[in-house]
Amino acid sequence: MYALYIANKNYSSWSLRPWVLLKTLGIDFDERFVPFLQASSYEEFRKFSPTGLVPCLVDGDLTVWDSLAITEYVAEDYSQVWPGDRAARAWARSAAAEMHSGFATLRNICGMNVGVRVRMHEINGALQTNLDRMDELWSEGLSRFGGPFLAGETFTAVDAFFCPVAFRVQTYDLKLSDTSLAYCERLLELPAMKEWYEAGLAETIRDEPHDAEIGLAGALIEDLRAV
Amino acid sequence: MYALYIANKNYSSWSLRPWVLLKTLGIDFDERFVPFLQASSYEEFRKFSPTGLVPCLVDGDLTVWDSLAITEYVAEDYSQVWPGDRAARAWARSAAAEMHSGFATLRNICGMNVGVRVRMHEINGALQTNLDRMDELWSEGLSRFGGPFLAGETFTAVDAFFCPVAFRVQTYDLKLSDTSLAYCERLLELPAMKEWYEAGLAETIRDEPHDAEIGLAGALIEDLRAV
Repeated sequence: MYALYIANKNYSSWSLRPWVLLKTLGIDFDERFVPFLQASSYEEFRKFSPTGLVPCLVDGDLTVWDSLAITEYVAEDYSQVWPGDRAARAWARSAAAEMHSGFATLRNICGMNVGVRVRMHEINGALQTNLDRMDELWSEGLSRFGGPFLAGETFTAVDAFFCPVAFRVQTYDLKLSDTSLAYCERLLELPAMKEWYEAGLAETIRDEPHDAEIGLAGALIEDLRAV
Repeated sequence: MYALYIANKNYSSWSLRPWVLLKTLGIDFDERFVPFLQASSYEEFRKFSPTGLVPCLVDGDLTVWDSLAITEYVAEDYSQVWPGDRAARAWARSAAAEMHSGFATLRNICGMNVGVRVRMHEINGALQTNLDRMDELWSEGLSRFGGPFLAGETFTAVDAFFCPVAFRVQTYDLKLSDTSLAYCERLLELPAMKEWYEAGLAETIRDEPHDAEIGLAGALIEDLRAV
């Protein structure tokens, strides 16, 4: 069975991607939770992950240490990871890879923090460019492949790659098109997303650097996390 | 036949990756060169690439707009893109994905500029961390899979992903382990890398923002490009 190392459900957007993929596709795995702990997490994570980062998947004596590499690794065992249609699959891989290396401003300013609500200071030009591109990309996928998911009828890896964006939209009340907001709502309603969210709210471990990122984006207006 | 859109061979590190992969594996493609031209390149690139970025591969009516997505797309047609052995393939995909989303300091400070030589100002801590990780990663691949390439006997996509690093090492005289420097030399000696390099030297189109990046890293000591 796969072992998947992940960090805090409140913060770890990269962990969420393979986790929600495996859960939603019904692929069994052993969840290994290793929380971010200020100053010591790099050394802790290096015990299982060569980059000192999560997620990291271990399968017997193989270690796969990046979210996209994990996705392709699992896709070799489970063909439903990517769409069956070649055109949809090429599109899905392009969109997931764009998220993997892009949308830097969104990722930097609006750090994932599922249990809080933040009033944004302002939307700067670079962030607005990211949001406009998100609208364009999602709109293209949903209309071209017919929805309700980005590359067609079923949830695939490309949706998993955008699941953290749905939490960010909720946390920061980001303005996207109605089509995009409806898509985010659809992601948030997935059983696996609800499970992740509830577990995030129940977490009592806090990581100061992650919580400090809230101030970059705006003002904290609500903290729904357990104390 | 595939059509591959690329930009200036002096600067475009992302273009180099699929280009050197296709060339080295002997996969035929139609090269479409669209140079960076200050201020207008985004609009020009948007005519064929949804992100306004290169590389972008077009195959009939399909567009694949990211280097890693292009790699996986081509891998469906040509199995030699990734190593045949499952463990080597998982390692290769992890390392390529790490390059795709990581090594940010190296990419930001030491922009690819194949035709110049630069004396570095200093190596800051974040850059040294990137270089140390590069040494560790390459050393692991070369020893585990026996070399001379990162995942074994043949050049695969993971080597293509690190080809721009070989040019950066040459341009900035970066200090790496002897094992890593020998690996860079091996990459620079590939016929496709020599072809790219010669074409870069022959380019007379300059992009001011790319050339201005040299000053971030150090002092220009030699410019080998055609005038």
